[in-house]
Amino acid sequence: MQYGVLGTGVVGLTLGGRLIELGHEVRLGSRSADNEKASAWSAANGDRASHGTFSEAAEFGERVVNATSGAASIEALRLAGAEALRGKVLIDLANALDFSQGFPPVAGIALDDSLGERIQREFPEARVVKTLNTINVAVTVDPGSLPAEHAMFLCGDDATAKEEVRSLLLELGFAPGGIVDLGGIAQARGTELYVALWVRLMGLFGDARFNISIVRA
Amino acid sequence: MQYGVLGTGVVGLTLGGRLIELGHEVRLGSRSADNEKASAWSAANGDRASHGTFSEAAEFGERVVNATSGAASIEALRLAGAEALRGKVLIDLANALDFSQGFPPVAGIALDDSLGERIQREFPEARVVKTLNTINVAVTVDPGSLPAEHAMFLCGDDATAKEEVRSLLLELGFAPGGIVDLGGIAQARGTELYVALWVRLMGLFGDARFNISIVRA
Repeated sequence: MQYGVLGTGVVGLTLGGRLIELGHEVRLGSRSADNEKASAWSAANGDRASHGTFSEAAEFGERVVNATSGAASIEALRLAGAEALRGKVLIDLANALDFSQGFPPVAGIALDDSLGERIQREFPEARVVKTLNTINVAVTVDPGSLPAEHAMFLCGDDATAKEEVRSLLLELGFAPGGIVDLGGIAQARGTELYVALWVRLMGLFGDARFNISIVRA
Repeated sequence: MQYGVLGTGVVGLTLGGRLIELGHEVRLGSRSADNEKASAWSAANGDRASHGTFSEAAEFGERVVNATSGAASIEALRLAGAEALRGKVLIDLANALDFSQGFPPVAGIALDDSLGERIQREFPEARVVKTLNTINVAVTVDPGSLPAEHAMFLCGDDATAKEEVRSLLLELGFAPGGIVDLGGIAQARGTELYVALWVRLMGLFGDARFNISIVRA
């Protein structure tokens, strides 16, 4: 599978590397085609790794991953272009985190909206699936590193797109029993606002390698 | 211990009953002294149960429990009166849930504020501890009904008040290992916004008898 991964922060670089390990082709996208981190990443990751602009990465990808920071996501996706995203599964990992008041950051974009929904509204022909935004990328690329089954949420308006993303989660090593389909993309509000608790737990533990599991009666 | 429990919804009635079972005295408070549900509750719960106005319940309590709905909490606490709350542990279980747009409700009061903080600001001489707002009262009164250890968060600015609340959590049957002290009352933002995820899980499961646990590397 060809993935376009938008964003050259630790999430994009780490998840991109893991997708290469899993046998996929990955083009990492950033604002400029000669981004230093992206160049170093593609040089280090072999023949199936490449880099380019947001637009070049989105065009390359059969699936596109939004691994930009939440505050920059809409602009990055506009640079990628609606045409390059049309009909594709767009996996949105991003969280809007506002550090202007210090740590912990303010998480989310509104009580009654979410970045996932905003992206779906802005790019109605993309098939947005929100997932992997409730854990650190260290857990994303090695779910089995946690000592018990843990939860991974997904949501989106396109059932087929969610099935594809579920397959990717299984490839990454998530246990089938931990995957929770919350419903349509509006349910992204739940996972994006949960991040307000996550950042506090991360601060308390001094370690991002954790997740939640659900305990039912 | 004498508890004043403010609110005659299912949370106040159920938790009040459990506190009676545990040997405490409980006065249930509501807007009017002759509230029918409160009258029926105190008639059914024996000599240690009584009811009255918000003010009478708060005066009676050595500890006060805010079990009103989040939208009504500030007004209920004003009726209880700052004098009756002064110096007391005020256990805030409430969540602001706005059902005006249907289900799931919009949870929380703001991205950068919380009901717990608002109550502490409004009643600076009360010792507010936010806890038990992340589960249904069916779990609150029987934590052992879930088949694995699960998380209970607390936060507040007064360390002694938090110790008292931790003791109450243990009395209720929470496992010590599941209790997580998040820090000061501002951390209530994390648990109140998590409720946006909780309500979605509740809708998905069709059952409120669940909680999360934390899985750490």
